[in-house]
Amino acid sequence: MAKNILLLNGPNLNLLGSREPHIYGKTTLDNVVSSIRAVVEAAGGKFASFQSNHEGDLIDRIHQAKQDKVDLIVINPGGLTHTSVSLRDALSGVNIPFYEVHISNIHQREPFRHHSYLSPIAEGVICGFGTDGYRMAVEFALKH
Amino acid sequence: MAKNILLLNGPNLNLLGSREPHIYGKTTLDNVVSSIRAVVEAAGGKFASFQSNHEGDLIDRIHQAKQDKVDLIVINPGGLTHTSVSLRDALSGVNIPFYEVHISNIHQREPFRHHSYLSPIAEGVICGFGTDGYRMAVEFALKH
Amino acid sequence: MAKNILLLNGPNLNLLGSREPHIYGKTTLDNVVSSIRAVVEAAGGKFASFQSNHEGDLIDRIHQAKQDKVDLIVINPGGLTHTSVSLRDALSGVNIPFYEVHISNIHQREPFRHHSYLSPIAEGVICGFGTDGYRMAVEFALKH
Amino acid sequence: MAKNILLLNGPNLNLLGSREPHIYGKTTLDNVVSSIRAVVEAAGGKFASFQSNHEGDLIDRIHQAKQDKVDLIVINPGGLTHTSVSLRDALSGVNIPFYEVHISNIHQREPFRHHSYLSPIAEGVICGFGTDGYRMAVEFALKH
Amino acid sequence: MAKNILLLNGPNLNLLGSREPHIYGKTTLDNVVSSIRAVVEAAGGKFASFQSNHEGDLIDRIHQAKQDKVDLIVINPGGLTHTSVSLRDALSGVNIPFYEVHISNIHQREPFRHHSYLSPIAEGVICGFGTDGYRMAVEFALKH
Amino acid sequence: MAKNILLLNGPNLNLLGSREPHIYGKTTLDNVVSSIRAVVEAAGGKFASFQSNHEGDLIDRIHQAKQDKVDLIVINPGGLTHTSVSLRDALSGVNIPFYEVHISNIHQREPFRHHSYLSPIAEGVICGFGTDGYRMAVEFALKH
Amino acid sequence: MAKNILLLNGPNLNLLGSREPHIYGKTTLDNVVSSIRAVVEAAGGKFASFQSNHEGDLIDRIHQAKQDKVDLIVINPGGLTHTSVSLRDALSGVNIPFYEVHISNIHQREPFRHHSYLSPIAEGVICGFGTDGYRMAVEFALKH
Amino acid sequence: MAKNILLLNGPNLNLLGSREPHIYGKTTLDNVVSSIRAVVEAAGGKFASFQSNHEGDLIDRIHQAKQDKVDLIVINPGGLTHTSVSLRDALSGVNIPFYEVHISNIHQREPFRHHSYLSPIAEGVICGFGTDGYRMAVEFALKH
Amino acid sequence: MAKNILLLNGPNLNLLGSREPHIYGKTTLDNVVSSIRAVVEAAGGKFASFQSNHEGDLIDRIHQAKQDKVDLIVINPGGLTHTSVSLRDALSGVNIPFYEVHISNIHQREPFRHHSYLSPIAEGVICGFGTDGYRMAVEFALKH
Amino acid sequence: MAKNILLLNGPNLNLLGSREPHIYGKTTLDNVVSSIRAVVEAAGGKFASFQSNHEGDLIDRIHQAKQDKVDLIVINPGGLTHTSVSLRDALSGVNIPFYEVHISNIHQREPFRHHSYLSPIAEGVICGFGTDGYRMAVEFALKH
Amino acid sequence: MAKNILLLNGPNLNLLGSREPHIYGKTTLDNVVSSIRAVVEAAGGKFASFQSNHEGDLIDRIHQAKQDKVDLIVINPGGLTHTSVSLRDALSGVNIPFYEVHISNIHQREPFRHHSYLSPIAEGVICGFGTDGYRMAVEFALKH
Amino acid sequence: MAKNILLLNGPNLNLLGSREPHIYGKTTLDNVVSSIRAVVEAAGGKFASFQSNHEGDLIDRIHQAKQDKVDLIVINPGGLTHTSVSLRDALSGVNIPFYEVHISNIHQREPFRHHSYLSPIAEGVICGFGTDGYRMAVEFALKH
Repeated sequence: MAKNILLLNGPNLNLLGSREPHIYGKTTLDNVVSSIRAVVEAAGGKFASFQSNHEGDLIDRIHQAKQDKVDLIVINPGGLTHTSVSLRDALSGVNIPFYEVHISNIHQREPFRHHSYLSPIAEGVICGFGTDGYRMAVEFALKH
Repeated sequence: MAKNILLLNGPNLNLLGSREPHIYGKTTLDNVVSSIRAVVEAAGGKFASFQSNHEGDLIDRIHQAKQDKVDLIVINPGGLTHTSVSLRDALSGVNIPFYEVHISNIHQREPFRHHSYLSPIAEGVICGFGTDGYRMAVEFALKH
Repeated sequence: MAKNILLLNGPNLNLLGSREPHIYGKTTLDNVVSSIRAVVEAAGGKFASFQSNHEGDLIDRIHQAKQDKVDLIVINPGGLTHTSVSLRDALSGVNIPFYEVHISNIHQREPFRHHSYLSPIAEGVICGFGTDGYRMAVEFALKH
Repeated sequence: MAKNILLLNGPNLNLLGSREPHIYGKTTLDNVVSSIRAVVEAAGGKFASFQSNHEGDLIDRIHQAKQDKVDLIVINPGGLTHTSVSLRDALSGVNIPFYEVHISNIHQREPFRHHSYLSPIAEGVICGFGTDGYRMAVEFALKH
Repeated sequence: MAKNILLLNGPNLNLLGSREPHIYGKTTLDNVVSSIRAVVEAAGGKFASFQSNHEGDLIDRIHQAKQDKVDLIVINPGGLTHTSVSLRDALSGVNIPFYEVHISNIHQREPFRHHSYLSPIAEGVICGFGTDGYRMAVEFALKH
Repeated sequence: MAKNILLLNGPNLNLLGSREPHIYGKTTLDNVVSSIRAVVEAAGGKFASFQSNHEGDLIDRIHQAKQDKVDLIVINPGGLTHTSVSLRDALSGVNIPFYEVHISNIHQREPFRHHSYLSPIAEGVICGFGTDGYRMAVEFALKH
Repeated sequence: MAKNILLLNGPNLNLLGSREPHIYGKTTLDNVVSSIRAVVEAAGGKFASFQSNHEGDLIDRIHQAKQDKVDLIVINPGGLTHTSVSLRDALSGVNIPFYEVHISNIHQREPFRHHSYLSPIAEGVICGFGTDGYRMAVEFALKH
Repeated sequence: MAKNILLLNGPNLNLLGSREPHIYGKTTLDNVVSSIRAVVEAAGGKFASFQSNHEGDLIDRIHQAKQDKVDLIVINPGGLTHTSVSLRDALSGVNIPFYEVHISNIHQREPFRHHSYLSPIAEGVICGFGTDGYRMAVEFALKH
Repeated sequence: MAKNILLLNGPNLNLLGSREPHIYGKTTLDNVVSSIRAVVEAAGGKFASFQSNHEGDLIDRIHQAKQDKVDLIVINPGGLTHTSVSLRDALSGVNIPFYEVHISNIHQREPFRHHSYLSPIAEGVICGFGTDGYRMAVEFALKH
Repeated sequence: MAKNILLLNGPNLNLLGSREPHIYGKTTLDNVVSSIRAVVEAAGGKFASFQSNHEGDLIDRIHQAKQDKVDLIVINPGGLTHTSVSLRDALSGVNIPFYEVHISNIHQREPFRHHSYLSPIAEGVICGFGTDGYRMAVEFALKH
Repeated sequence: MAKNILLLNGPNLNLLGSREPHIYGKTTLDNVVSSIRAVVEAAGGKFASFQSNHEGDLIDRIHQAKQDKVDLIVINPGGLTHTSVSLRDALSGVNIPFYEVHISNIHQREPFRHHSYLSPIAEGVICGFGTDGYRMAVEFALKH
Repeated sequence: MAKNILLLNGPNLNLLGSREPHIYGKTTLDNVVSSIRAVVEAAGGKFASFQSNHEGDLIDRIHQAKQDKVDLIVINPGGLTHTSVSLRDALSGVNIPFYEVHISNIHQREPFRHHSYLSPIAEGVICGFGTDGYRMAVEFALKH
């Protein structure tokens, strides 16, 4: 059955392609969103994408996803990964399965990036596969 | 003397009644607010209520409470309980006494929910009494 | 249905009203017990109260509560809150739901007072509401 | 040579058979004591048993054991296992070898049950063999 | 060469002059901004100032600074100092050097105020010099 | 250019399909290896696979990979993930890029499974995507 | 003015002279009490002494000291030193200054003996001076 | 019903009888195995024994036990107790109940010996009973 | 009123200008002292400077400052920042307000440099402003 | 036999009588030394006293004490208590028994004052008895 | 008397000369072994060498050393240094004195390399002297 | 080319030969210095030696070594090993490579001796080889 998929990106991911390219690569967020949309729509799925630097906006959007009957969320929470209990609560509150994606391998970076409030309630986690990580998670979701 | 009371609810508490009912019960936030309003007004008090998923909006509202001559705040900070120094600073900044309420017994849940940045500056803390906790704190405040 | 309620107070709570009044207030334990008894009996309930400075006596009394068909315990464990696994085991052993009450806000005090062996198995916890905390817990219990 | 053996049980072990049977089983403490007594007396030994919910009573009893020329103590310290330096000091003070028994496997339970103040000065420790653990320790003691 | 300087203030700094004057003094944020603007403009520099209680707004403003060709940021992150990885990521993402200022000496306050997510990537840090700290950082920046 | 890929599986992964199917699913390791081999060979690549319950055998095999001119390793280290510095040293010693795969989401399991000695030197890490994780890593490797 | 002094000894100190003489020496508690009584009475003071293996009895005795108008307590809390918040609360509850004495140098022993719940509210602490420590504290008290 | 029992011994237990006899005693592993075999066969059970200094061999042997329809494992994991997640995974992977035995009282030794990766999934644990611990566990198993 | 200011420099600051110039810059300590002296004398103040690699000499000099009626100390304690309780005690003992200066941003360096024994009793702290930090602190002191 | 006693005082104790009198009292070090000298000489003993703010001088003086055939040292190490392994090594190196004295009760002060490098090798420790602590230790030493 | 010396090398040391030459240098293990053999034989000693990537093989070889009447072991345990209790137990089990050698200075590397399970029972430890460390230890052993 | 080598010894090493001979042996420091001097001069090198109990003197001497064109330092920092950041800064400040030597095996002693501030910037570290450690380091230095 066709799936309804929401792609969420947290703080600073709008900078993708310009910010610290040695860590995050040169693909922009628009590039990523377009290619993911193509993948989802090719599979007959429904797709929406949202990026914000505001924790509250991301939470609001997750609540709305419940109304929108989203089947699955793919989220790169950015810096909120390590600090936001509220984002975690929003995701468990709406009870929509989600995959967590990090562009860089967070285990190679500062110790405070090694803990994620989201991972213990995620379906799965991908890091270090660059922006391909989004696509890998979405393709997996479309098949399962 | 009649009291001016502000009820604050943090992230995800708008989901009350739908989110994880085995933890939070089936009463909606609207139900809670109505019944608290009734209690305060019956006692001749003034009442306002505010919920937001945005830390910044909650801080702005606390600052405004100073203008509004609020006597006492009852707050359920949601996930910000465990992560927001800024919310704590807002409350100590306006110097309005407040009570902290949690619907569930946070000591039965994940270890990161056992620490609150607000409790050390709260007048008192209630947890595990369901949505009755709000009313209990407000009734106490009206009498003292 | 009328409830059978037991009020338990641990070490040093016999000093209530004389000990460190800036922290614990001036109400004596007798005052507290009388007013709680009145509340319970007004609701048609059965009431008993016990205070001891001896961990063992409190445990014995909790075991007896099982014989006495106590429905609910309201307990202020005093200093045993932070040190007694045996008291916890007694409460879980008799399988009677209980509420934990602290007169002062323990989160404003020394770090060793921030952990309670009882809270993770309590129904709920109230602290910082002075001796009113007992009444608030009992009134809640009578209604549920 | 015939041995003089003392069986000690700490807080809440009087509940054995009624308390949390999924953890502790259905044998009562009287059943345990009778069967251990039978084992010791069959080996021509002397036997005494004592249970208390009071740390102080257990310490007094350990001191008395010195007068009674007890050769060996088998003790299940209950919740005092994790909290009582005084019980440890009593055992090292009388200088009687002892074995520590826990009915359940304490390593499967809460982290605070993983540390014992007694184990570092015990001869040996058995846990998770149900009430048979007592008998196993006593039989070993009778043979050595 | 004339410099383009941005002054950022985080949560609760709008309360400056009213909030806890024994800690933060009586100068208002408007006073501070005016005097800093005067210093920068006297040196032929360009100046902008922004305060928000919203983490997301501060991040948005830092991103905009890149567009505005800001040379240097002076930031007092308020309570976000201790909790916001996203703010840190915004600052390293735009790659604009910044100085961190705290009005009070944060080392004299609660332990959770002793760690800053920003300091390890700041050029320098000033604390305890009251509102003069802003001016000291800006004057230094104008000269280097 | 066609790639030479080695798939490595550590202790207990030979049990795949039989061991704890609620955690690991029902696909056997043979199933996994066949399907990965198909993917690699379809892309014109070279493929080898090795599983062992012996740390030393895995290290030997990694050393041999250097001789075999392996371009990339995909490894599920099993329980060695959390305990083997030697395996890490083997991988950094041969200087072959590798991806780390876990079938289950290790962040939902015991705390000792949250740390990996390999992740800080891996190219990327996938967990929680079941046995598809292997394929996802290999497909990514074939394209880059 | 003549002083009213209470000497308290906690668990296992009744064993003094028999228990682990290489640590605690050969003087009995009776010897100690007699010689301290002589010192106090020679100075025209009033003296009482109490030893118990029961935390609750020690707390009761401290409460009674308030009635008895005791000016100063000299206490060796034995193993309760390291575990009893309730004993600490009793001492601060009656608000009688006290000195803490340990016969052995507790800093040479197990790490769990290095922390005392009482020391932070004691007037002073003596350890390692054998049973003379009691006398030294009492003589000091009589003079000040 | 007759039971099929496997006795496993980890690294260095082949040295039994020669290695550090003040800790481990003088009985050799052959002595132990013979006497346990006698006990099992007397009870009509099936018995096998395996010792290895190789973690991988022990894991292989545990996997084979599944094939051999072993009912219960008694294991002394030696130094792997404290370091091997893979051994734990093997035991939980085959889902055969097991008892953990240590010859010495590991709580009297270095701190790193106080934690066992196996204990939380063992049925029970015996330590400090010398080589009798094996027999005690096997006899218990034969009866239950 | 004219101020009497003492500049103190701790171990290794005599190397300034030669030691690790990528961290500390090329200005020598003589350069720094001259320029600070000029600033103080221009303001009509009294100035003295002292550097030593000896903790004891610095403490002696601080004691002498009390005799010399020094109004304010500006100190860069070098490596003693992180290790010397005695230096802290000297500064609190003479009760002269002081500012702490570090040339480099210590938060970018090894973790052991992140804690200062002096900061909690300093008026303020500056780090990362190079040798200008001294001047900034002195100019501030002259004005307040 | 007459004893040869050395009194050592560490950093900042020369300030005694002037430094923080609410903590350390008004007696000067000269007063202390005179009165201790009188006590020792009255007992026919030999006495020397040394104070220094230099760790190295204290160590040199301890080495010299070996030459001087000192029988016992009474030392107040000041801030070096908490930081000097070298002072500890000097004391254990000359193998002269010593008593450690602190004027204030260090357990009432900052946490870093709760650990002493010297206490584990001292004969005994006195704190919180003001400058009388020196005399108490010396009188004890003269008698034993 | 001529000595019988065994040289042991753990996991990955067979890569010596090829693995990470910036850390470990270019000498191969064969080079090392030859030159050490020459040194031992020149001194009339007996020499054997063994390298393995298998913990179990190293343990087996250590056991055999007892049979071979080896006088002294020089061991570079590789990654097992930090993880193998079993290797430690093998060395203490055979009771042969040993020296621990690391080619690189492990204190300059990741924190998990700073702890060695072997060092507390080694005679001595050398690190950072490259492959000369082996020779230095052997030459020392031949002389003592 | 002939090397210029400086041997440094920290606090208490002047006691060598007399202090705790069971730990440090009977060779005096003079013996050590003479034999090292002989080794260096035999190799045509230049040699100087310095011992002090004063941290500051050691730092001064290290600074002077820069003037003296010392090529390499061999240092036994004594108790300063574990406490002196200033000594570390001196060594990195002059940028002279150095080897760290400890006579005893510090890993067999108290935990606070297991960490060295110097090791992370040393070339290499030797411990447990007695006074031969100095010679081994010097001979190595002369050859490289």
